[in-house]
Amino acid sequence: MIVDIINKKRLGQILSKEELEFFFNGYLEGKVTDYQMSSMLMAICIKNMTEREIFDLCDIFIKSGEILDFSDIEGIKVDKHSTGGVGDKTTMIIAPIVASLGVPVVKMSGRGLGFTGGTIDKLESIPGFRTDLSIDEIKQQVKEIGMVVAGQTANLAPMDKKIYALRDVTGTVESIPLIATSIMSKKIASGADKILIDIKVGKGALLKNEKDARKLSELMQKIGKEYNKEVRCLITNMDNPLGTSIGNTLEVVEAINILTGKEKNSLTDLCIELASNMVSMGKNISIEEAEERVKGSIYSGLAYQKFLDFVKHQGGIINNMKLSPNKYDINATKAGVIESIDALEFGKLSVTLGAGRINKEDIIDPSVGIVFDKLVGDKVEIGEKLCTIYNNREIQLPDIESFIKIS
Amino acid sequence: MIVDIINKKRLGQILSKEELEFFFNGYLEGKVTDYQMSSMLMAICIKNMTEREIFDLCDIFIKSGEILDFSDIEGIKVDKHSTGGVGDKTTMIIAPIVASLGVPVVKMSGRGLGFTGGTIDKLESIPGFRTDLSIDEIKQQVKEIGMVVAGQTANLAPMDKKIYALRDVTGTVESIPLIATSIMSKKIASGADKILIDIKVGKGALLKNEKDARKLSELMQKIGKEYNKEVRCLITNMDNPLGTSIGNTLEVVEAINILTGKEKNSLTDLCIELASNMVSMGKNISIEEAEERVKGSIYSGLAYQKFLDFVKHQGGIINNMKLSPNKYDINATKAGVIESIDALEFGKLSVTLGAGRINKEDIIDPSVGIVFDKLVGDKVEIGEKLCTIYNNREIQLPDIESFIKIS
Repeated sequence: MIVDIINKKRLGQILSKEELEFFFNGYLEGKVTDYQMSSMLMAICIKNMTEREIFDLCDIFIKSGEILDFSDIEGIKVDKHSTGGVGDKTTMIIAPIVASLGVPVVKMSGRGLGFTGGTIDKLESIPGFRTDLSIDEIKQQVKEIGMVVAGQTANLAPMDKKIYALRDVTGTVESIPLIATSIMSKKIASGADKILIDIKVGKGALLKNEKDARKLSELMQKIGKEYNKEVRCLITNMDNPLGTSIGNTLEVVEAINILTGKEKNSLTDLCIELASNMVSMGKNISIEEAEERVKGSIYSGLAYQKFLDFVKHQGGIINNMKLSPNKYDINATKAGVIESIDALEFGKLSVTLGAGRINKEDIIDPSVGIVFDKLVGDKVEIGEKLCTIYNNREIQLPDIESFIKIS
Repeated sequence: MIVDIINKKRLGQILSKEELEFFFNGYLEGKVTDYQMSSMLMAICIKNMTEREIFDLCDIFIKSGEILDFSDIEGIKVDKHSTGGVGDKTTMIIAPIVASLGVPVVKMSGRGLGFTGGTIDKLESIPGFRTDLSIDEIKQQVKEIGMVVAGQTANLAPMDKKIYALRDVTGTVESIPLIATSIMSKKIASGADKILIDIKVGKGALLKNEKDARKLSELMQKIGKEYNKEVRCLITNMDNPLGTSIGNTLEVVEAINILTGKEKNSLTDLCIELASNMVSMGKNISIEEAEERVKGSIYSGLAYQKFLDFVKHQGGIINNMKLSPNKYDINATKAGVIESIDALEFGKLSVTLGAGRINKEDIIDPSVGIVFDKLVGDKVEIGEKLCTIYNNREIQLPDIESFIKIS
């Protein structure tokens, strides 16, 4: 029976909900082995799934664990998800902006693995910051200050967790149906009313081209419809790292700089776009009106105040953050204009420095990372600083200048 | 690196010999896991392999274990392989015929798993019959009587053994490149000079259509060329079980009946065709001349005498064979002509009776099985016997008459 179902998918046939349930629930129960699941996942990657199969599979993922209910919290809860990327600190910036405008934000976030960092790791670089909140604590905090960012304490879509770990090591990550199922099952189980998804495309992202991103976008909107949840997707570029910093403490510092208006760049623009969409969804207003309010919140200092409240509520002491004292400047040996900054290479470098994990059990060093002095489009003279490396390890650094293309 | 190689094959790209070696040797060394291998095998099943990749993979399989050398035995050693099927007892019949005509036969044979029986199991139903011969014993016997059938005592293509077991449970059996690699690696490692392959096509066989059989045939001939070994392939039907019996002792009895000319049917024709090809290859004579000699060997009793010598040399006592005393006749409830006998269903029934294994560690009951009184094309009257079931188990038998189509 198990092998018959794999054979069906190998031949490109459509699986019924009963077959999908038998196979996937069987995996969680230990009746279907890892090697049978990876064979099935590869067949799905290559042979694809119909929309009906994807809806069924997503439903099986959702029902594999707890489904949170925040209906006792007033207002339209808008959740946001990013498909990940190097230096993505948007959650820390957007959530306070949106919450400051009266849209409640309940954000369940993950830890990072590989070269893409996790919001939880970044926030935990603030000494004292707690992310292991209970559902009651989460609800209490949203009622008090309108926002919370917590680790996945609840058992949300455990099927996704188990399958994602397997996909990661079996070459079965790059499948639109499987990516959609993974994201949407967690988001729907998280109990949000509306969902904004930031689909990253480019070198430093999971999806390498816009066509796939558009397919994924349509698919996730259709899945949302099955649960009566509005889903909006933005497709944003991830060829270059986001903003000026990579590394946990460094990214918190950068988030503060954006919220206080000290730093203004393409990351600011992206955060305004994402926050405006969330406010538009949460308040049922036009995107233009939402954007006005978002900008107002930043310039008035309301958003930053919300950020400080949020950090304090979760036990963090901002002033105790520490950066590595070992700094190393990379200076340009060539003049010109910065054409590109290789997000993937810098992502890998940050893992080498200790800012990310190779294995789940690795411990992160929050004080290390990279700060860019020049971004894409900037002019640079010979001898000018391109970036600064914060490092605590005795390692041989790669040829970092080669990751930055100057023309 | 492991995942990169899987990803390459998922995208349908060509793998280099170095990549195939890294991945497949890594599997045998335990560096590549079962779930990574099954994902790769599924990608190969769907995305296929180029001839160069197949040659490389086959070479890796061959070099994973011992390679036997029988060059000190005089004459052209011709090996024969069948892709398996229900009631396939051809080896027991052909080997004595071919050996009686001066073509040495060194046959390494396997045990059965699932509904296709293994020659070794069949021979072991003869009390005292030994199949665990050392290489020295094998060589000695071939020198003395010109033939031997032994279990795979040598460590031939262990990679194939490990991967075949995985394919069996992950829906990755039906792949022409993987089937070709599996068969040819074992045959080439077995040390034969020329190889005859009987490709079974039909309901009771691995391959369901002739087009795939032809593809497999061409591929195996090309692999043979890489090692300077002539490979001939016959494509034969396997919709109906082969001959009149399924079950271990029953099949030995049937083999004797064919060798002594007591039974004559389509199995006799198939054995003559296969034996003629082997003699033609071993003696470098035309197929017509070989067929004359083969028929002569059977009719003169030479072949049967060789069979008796062979059984005696390996310790078997023919007269001590026993059949189950519990017989159960299936009589026709309808008159007409036998249109088909479902090989797959009867194969499964034989496993239920205990004539085959579901799991590797199952012990076979040699005394049970099925004997057909009517074959395809025979006329049958109401009340006439269709077949006899030999059974020792207290089991609920299925509706056996429904496996035989009468029109």
